[in-house]
Amino acid sequence: MVQKPAPDSTRRSEKSRRAIYDAALALVGEVGYPKTTIEGIAARAGVGKQTIYRWWSSKADVLLEAFLDLGEQAAEAAEAAAPPGREGYENGGVPDTGDLAADLKYVLRATVDELLDPKFEVPYRALAAEGVVNEKISGEFVARLLEPGLQLYMRRLRSAQEAGDVRPDIDPRIGLELFVAPLAQRWLQRSGPLSHAYTDTLVDYALHGLAPR
Amino acid sequence: MVQKPAPDSTRRSEKSRRAIYDAALALVGEVGYPKTTIEGIAARAGVGKQTIYRWWSSKADVLLEAFLDLGEQAAEAAEAAAPPGREGYENGGVPDTGDLAADLKYVLRATVDELLDPKFEVPYRALAAEGVVNEKISGEFVARLLEPGLQLYMRRLRSAQEAGDVRPDIDPRIGLELFVAPLAQRWLQRSGPLSHAYTDTLVDYALHGLAPR
Repeated sequence: MVQKPAPDSTRRSEKSRRAIYDAALALVGEVGYPKTTIEGIAARAGVGKQTIYRWWSSKADVLLEAFLDLGEQAAEAAEAAAPPGREGYENGGVPDTGDLAADLKYVLRATVDELLDPKFEVPYRALAAEGVVNEKISGEFVARLLEPGLQLYMRRLRSAQEAGDVRPDIDPRIGLELFVAPLAQRWLQRSGPLSHAYTDTLVDYALHGLAPR
Repeated sequence: MVQKPAPDSTRRSEKSRRAIYDAALALVGEVGYPKTTIEGIAARAGVGKQTIYRWWSSKADVLLEAFLDLGEQAAEAAEAAAPPGREGYENGGVPDTGDLAADLKYVLRATVDELLDPKFEVPYRALAAEGVVNEKISGEFVARLLEPGLQLYMRRLRSAQEAGDVRPDIDPRIGLELFVAPLAQRWLQRSGPLSHAYTDTLVDYALHGLAPR
């Protein structure tokens, strides 16, 4: 079946929307969150500021959606690069192949790659920095960007509990922090290098513990 | 033996130094790192800016030392509040009573209290936020404030390895992140509540792992 081309107005909207996202991400990376304005985003995207206000109510709104869009693009790229023919890698979240350690390592390696990608890193740092001192932004950041990702890990840990791979008394929301938070802290505070070997080690330590078995 | 009073000039210096630290911490909490200036700190402390330049080379320098001083005060207060007659609590760092879980829980509970203390929280957030976007500040922050604290945990984990309480193949620098980083991330990103029960749980999960034993 031949796909019908989108009507002109839709294609124009999609193009503007992407231009606005790109402008918002570039600007916040260059001047920081406090100095980013709707006017600045509009000028850089080559649209009127009314175009922006038609779709979003504030600069925080534009930025959060720009990041969600960036995340979706990264997820699509990761899916396209997933090992062919392997089951469980098609849901765009944390895979469930039955091998918990392998599934967690797979997603954390992809996260390392994303955090080291300058296209993502510079604007993401600007937004994260604002969240440290601005409780309102931080609330939206957590609710719309961070927590949905953590929920995917929670679901995977719950399924591991059903399979007997994680102790039934573990609170998955806290358990996931053992391998997610060290990566976040090293990235946010630059307190150590990020690598695939590092996140693999985190998963092994978190699953098996530091104490002898 | 009667202690000789400090000469007037030393007492004056100590008083100025403390006034400068207080002014620097208050100012950075109010206006953020980028807008904090040596001139502003001097005006608020009621000293000439030459007094500041005599002791410190930059505003980053003043702020980092103000935090080090705040940390020392907190350590002294914690030491004064330590359970009387208990061995191992006198080194001002991570105690070594032979009970690894109890020692880690003790220090992490004190850290929770410190992170929730507004006197500490507001200026610390301003400096941490700047570190997220400013690699130079972040380098000094990590080297002078964060890493010395982590080294105390490393020493405790090494002693636990000698005692057979931590597996010999664990890298202590990574192992400590399993209970330190979740607390840091919840605080930095406000992604969850901080409590003593929470850090106790982190220590138990980190030592024993998520997988069944």
